[in-house]
Amino acid sequence: MNHTLDLSLLVDPRSVVVVGASERPASIGERVLTNLLDHSDFRGNLYLVNATRTEIRGHKCYERVAALPETPDLAVVAVPAGAVLGVIEECASRGVRFAIILSSGFGEAGEEGHRMQEAMKRIAERSGMRIYGPNCPGLCNVNKRLGFTFSPAFKDDLNSGPVGLVTQGGGLGRSIMQAMRRGFGVGLWASTGNEVDLQVSDFIRYMADAEDIRVIVALLEGIKDGPRFLDAIRHAARKGKPIVALKVGKSEYGMKAAQSHTASITGSAEVNSTVFRQFGVIEVDDLDELVDTAWLLVRKIPDPASQVDLQNEIGIYCSSGGTTALTADMVGAQGVRLADFAPETLAVLREHLPSYAATANPIDTTTAVLADPTIVEKTMAAVCRDPGVSMVLLPMALDYGSVTERTARDVVRVQAESPVPIVPIWMSDSLGGGFSVFSQAGMMPMRSAGKAVKAIHRWGEYARWKRDFEPDRLPLRLRTPAIGSGAQMERASQSASPISEPQAKAWLAAAGVPVPRCEVARDVDEALDIASRIGYPVVAKVVSPDIQHKSDVGGVSVGIRDDESLRNAWRSIHASVSKAMPEAEIEGLLIEGMAKEGGVEVLVGVSRDPVFGHVLTFGLGGIYVELFKDVARRLLPLTPNDALAMIREIRSFPVLDGARGRPSRDLEALQGLLLKMSDFVSENADRIEEIDLNPVWVGEQGQGVIALDALIAGSLPGDFAR
Amino acid sequence: MNHTLDLSLLVDPRSVVVVGASERPASIGERVLTNLLDHSDFRGNLYLVNATRTEIRGHKCYERVAALPETPDLAVVAVPAGAVLGVIEECASRGVRFAIILSSGFGEAGEEGHRMQEAMKRIAERSGMRIYGPNCPGLCNVNKRLGFTFSPAFKDDLNSGPVGLVTQGGGLGRSIMQAMRRGFGVGLWASTGNEVDLQVSDFIRYMADAEDIRVIVALLEGIKDGPRFLDAIRHAARKGKPIVALKVGKSEYGMKAAQSHTASITGSAEVNSTVFRQFGVIEVDDLDELVDTAWLLVRKIPDPASQVDLQNEIGIYCSSGGTTALTADMVGAQGVRLADFAPETLAVLREHLPSYAATANPIDTTTAVLADPTIVEKTMAAVCRDPGVSMVLLPMALDYGSVTERTARDVVRVQAESPVPIVPIWMSDSLGGGFSVFSQAGMMPMRSAGKAVKAIHRWGEYARWKRDFEPDRLPLRLRTPAIGSGAQMERASQSASPISEPQAKAWLAAAGVPVPRCEVARDVDEALDIASRIGYPVVAKVVSPDIQHKSDVGGVSVGIRDDESLRNAWRSIHASVSKAMPEAEIEGLLIEGMAKEGGVEVLVGVSRDPVFGHVLTFGLGGIYVELFKDVARRLLPLTPNDALAMIREIRSFPVLDGARGRPSRDLEALQGLLLKMSDFVSENADRIEEIDLNPVWVGEQGQGVIALDALIAGSLPGDFAR
Repeated sequence: MNHTLDLSLLVDPRSVVVVGASERPASIGERVLTNLLDHSDFRGNLYLVNATRTEIRGHKCYERVAALPETPDLAVVAVPAGAVLGVIEECASRGVRFAIILSSGFGEAGEEGHRMQEAMKRIAERSGMRIYGPNCPGLCNVNKRLGFTFSPAFKDDLNSGPVGLVTQGGGLGRSIMQAMRRGFGVGLWASTGNEVDLQVSDFIRYMADAEDIRVIVALLEGIKDGPRFLDAIRHAARKGKPIVALKVGKSEYGMKAAQSHTASITGSAEVNSTVFRQFGVIEVDDLDELVDTAWLLVRKIPDPASQVDLQNEIGIYCSSGGTTALTADMVGAQGVRLADFAPETLAVLREHLPSYAATANPIDTTTAVLADPTIVEKTMAAVCRDPGVSMVLLPMALDYGSVTERTARDVVRVQAESPVPIVPIWMSDSLGGGFSVFSQAGMMPMRSAGKAVKAIHRWGEYARWKRDFEPDRLPLRLRTPAIGSGAQMERASQSASPISEPQAKAWLAAAGVPVPRCEVARDVDEALDIASRIGYPVVAKVVSPDIQHKSDVGGVSVGIRDDESLRNAWRSIHASVSKAMPEAEIEGLLIEGMAKEGGVEVLVGVSRDPVFGHVLTFGLGGIYVELFKDVARRLLPLTPNDALAMIREIRSFPVLDGARGRPSRDLEALQGLLLKMSDFVSENADRIEEIDLNPVWVGEQGQGVIALDALIAGSLPGDFAR
Repeated sequence: MNHTLDLSLLVDPRSVVVVGASERPASIGERVLTNLLDHSDFRGNLYLVNATRTEIRGHKCYERVAALPETPDLAVVAVPAGAVLGVIEECASRGVRFAIILSSGFGEAGEEGHRMQEAMKRIAERSGMRIYGPNCPGLCNVNKRLGFTFSPAFKDDLNSGPVGLVTQGGGLGRSIMQAMRRGFGVGLWASTGNEVDLQVSDFIRYMADAEDIRVIVALLEGIKDGPRFLDAIRHAARKGKPIVALKVGKSEYGMKAAQSHTASITGSAEVNSTVFRQFGVIEVDDLDELVDTAWLLVRKIPDPASQVDLQNEIGIYCSSGGTTALTADMVGAQGVRLADFAPETLAVLREHLPSYAATANPIDTTTAVLADPTIVEKTMAAVCRDPGVSMVLLPMALDYGSVTERTARDVVRVQAESPVPIVPIWMSDSLGGGFSVFSQAGMMPMRSAGKAVKAIHRWGEYARWKRDFEPDRLPLRLRTPAIGSGAQMERASQSASPISEPQAKAWLAAAGVPVPRCEVARDVDEALDIASRIGYPVVAKVVSPDIQHKSDVGGVSVGIRDDESLRNAWRSIHASVSKAMPEAEIEGLLIEGMAKEGGVEVLVGVSRDPVFGHVLTFGLGGIYVELFKDVARRLLPLTPNDALAMIREIRSFPVLDGARGRPSRDLEALQGLLLKMSDFVSENADRIEEIDLNPVWVGEQGQGVIALDALIAGSLPGDFAR
């Protein structure tokens, strides 16, 4: 069947049937009808289905969907769970394009519900009718004033606007909708509930194309289908529509709570964040940040061709000294920068502000000027026109009632002529007339200095991401649909025998990954022979399918400088291992060339996220990775820019870059290694579960890199098995 | 003169004179009078001074303070800046105890203002009359309903309560006062302005003793007098009154802004935070956090004898799945813990909640239960009575209007019987009736999940600090008042000649700090002689008053194993240094024993903060201190517990504690070294500007520690000078 991605007729249908329409007060069917008849601007054909009534509120009732005079674009289903399957079967047969299932009692309510949900899914797959829900509050198209929802709050959802909001659960979504009271304008809210068919991803894709949506806000409890999500966010990125996302279920506590709520697969929070960062999804940590950041983007979409937007230096305009300092602190703490005002700007400020005001950025006008709106207007306008300012922050610690309200009106006038947004911060709990003036003028106030500056910081990060975005890149899960599901992969890797270190190194070496010269010796003479070919010093390591942690059982000897030492090492390794693990089968010793002293050790790891696929991790080796979690991650494959960015973004990068007079490392070779690993995984995606190169030796410039130890979990191709 | 610390007669005077009382609308003198006559409950004797009027609003006007029939406790001065000095001179002569100077135009307004402010200071010092201000909005005693302020907002400051608020600037203070709209109850607000005499510290001390104040909130732009502040916060700690503080001017941007606003000395932000942590002042980062944290403390002061308070495990009670997960995420991210409910609690939850609700902590009741208040009450009460729960978090993502209002009333009823606070989080921008129900019931709602959990985390940290607080400890600046001002110290250290490494080591060794065996050799034979006494291997380092960075000029040679190598080292060091710095005077080479290989290197530093005095810094040596800022700091002197806590609180502590199978280090010797350094600085406080022991070698258990390199900036006692 052809499953349309165009949701226009769901969001703005020409004809609708409400199945289970009712007059019983506060029933779902009654509320849906009230929202459609009393609070919507629906001008298409509306049909009601109710087998026990002939008419409701002057509209004829049909006994069933099959009896309708035309096939409606959309069915809104408000019948008890037990009756839902029959209804949608009928809708599908009739050729209905979209069905919104408001009813609950499915996946979230035990086994029988889950079974019905699976049946529903099969109907959607078979018929091509797209299903929204179940267990959801419905859909609110605020811009067209259409509410296919039972929410009694729909009548208050009056503040339309360019934000597209998509959530899974209804509670958090309604919370964001209530930010309308602060001036947040939402055009469309989709709350996808149990996502039997349509998912958050489908709405992100739709909103990326929708003309009335400029910024997408996503509130995620779990991502069901990684490739579909990747495809959607890539599409939005190409269309230049920013996505601001809050993913709940990040901590262990939250993950458990999210699972019990939605039963989604939750991939790792780190991988989610990696994917977001990589594809320009702006991740935030709390509801207010979602609203703040999205509205800042509504007010100005960063232009990656503008130096001002990329540098994102701001002006602070304030009339209280302490508040100026507090806001400047937030700017400093978040790594945002204050613009240096141009001489013209400073001249205007000095001319009009009192001598004891602070005219350099951050500006403290002192309250003295609040009495004269002309001064406020002139000086603020000068700051807005400063060529180095990307936006102007207006922190307001307190509400002076009518005085503040007048100031707010002055600021709105300045905004009308300003090339950049003026962002008010309303810190007080007293929400007077000034607050409403800003809200109604589209200048939604932020509520704290810290959160405002956080939003600005994210805005700038997004501008820089946009500059670097390579729109033609395809993530690995989209390039190699053959990877298959996590379950299949797990079976595959379990059935394969463990891959030994020599096998892993041979496989990597064949792919061009630099590993030490090494061979497995079956007896001591072979070992001496190998060492003479490789050249001393060498390392000897036990090879055994039964031993994972070689060092722990005395299975490794390093710094072997001559034949005699090698003979001793042979004896002592065999003795230690036999003592520690008498049952272990020893295949021999791996004799390896030793890296030069004085290298820096890094680690390169690959893991497979059940939702998004293979992810590469890079960081400095040793204890600091564990203690400081100082790593960079990317979904594979990497571009050369990615690889370089990963190396540079770890905090300990100066260690590789010649800090404190140490030699610079071979960054080019390191970049090459990351790219090689990316290619290696891309070509063997269905065979690889996990790779751990730790340590990787990084020499000085020109000396290259060597993967000193290598572990691969997965299944070895036939050529490397012995 | 006797300068009283008892501010009772300032805060609640028996008689008051308003100097500059007026009827001119919106003048300062008129506003002060209106606040006193119309909006205050002042029952003492009120006198007005106005030379040009005989009476105002039925009150007789006196020509001057000298003419009053009695000496008032308090003078409120509302005359132009130029007339202030005369007025307070007269007040002082008359024996007035306290003067509030509302007028501005002093230290903040140029040189002439500064001069007048200095004169004002001398009057206070000479007479003992205590001066509040100038350049401040006045004092609001909300609990007694007394406003000695020109603020037209005083009439709205009706929500009295147990919080004592002390600020410097008025703007941020008024912002906190407006949190009354959220349910914040403030008993007294002091806004100390330019602090010519009375400072924030004096109000902290007063509030620590005041019976109607339970929690102190301080908003600081700069701390003028470190010892006075230390004394005040120590006093509050002994009295068991928590202080929640926001210090603005933390970042470089903020510090500049704060200086331009208050012209305070700003010590280092790190040192401020160190002092706060050490003396139990709860530092927060933004205005809302100040309000949230203070109110949580009002609702429950942690009892350090209670295991439940120390562990601070909480319950989450919520009716929306997504919101539950979001809140649980915040709990996980902040390192707070969720309580494991007792079997009795779980039994009640399972009995009353629907089968599909989440009954383990975090609880998701689902909205199904909101219809039945008896279920909410029964189950919430059970959670509140759970023996392991220190408080219950009630996240509310959205406002259902009257439904939410009814729920709020149900919750208030449960709270009345609950042994622990129920903390509502009102996440929506729609502030309906339910919000007011909570505000008015003393259950001030927090505004976001993240901030709520942050406040809870700080509450628990404070509980644990309280357990470990040693009330009899005196900080060094209180013990050694002879240290003198920063300016004096700087002169002292500048006049002294630089201290060489051998001198520093000799001085430290005499104090019992372990340094390597070392002697200065004037010629190569002396060097060989010293090496034979110390024993090879040795290190040789150039000794020169002209060379700061010995390694940079080839002035260090390590790992010298025999006489021949030492001769070579002698020649090559002299050759390198002569080449790099031909002018440098070389006194000889320091020949030192070498530490064993395989030690861990740490650093121990001492610096002198201009406000608070000597601070000790400890951390792992090398590049990670620079990159990760992983250090612990304490104001000196240290107790043994402090020293151990410092070692344990750095993130890289596992490196010292035998991580990844490495040997454990000699922590006892390291603790001993920190204590020795503390004693050393205490005994030589007036001589020491800065010490840098870097690296300090830390051996395995029983091997001790050695300060391999030592720099001291300051002035050497005569015994060690050569």
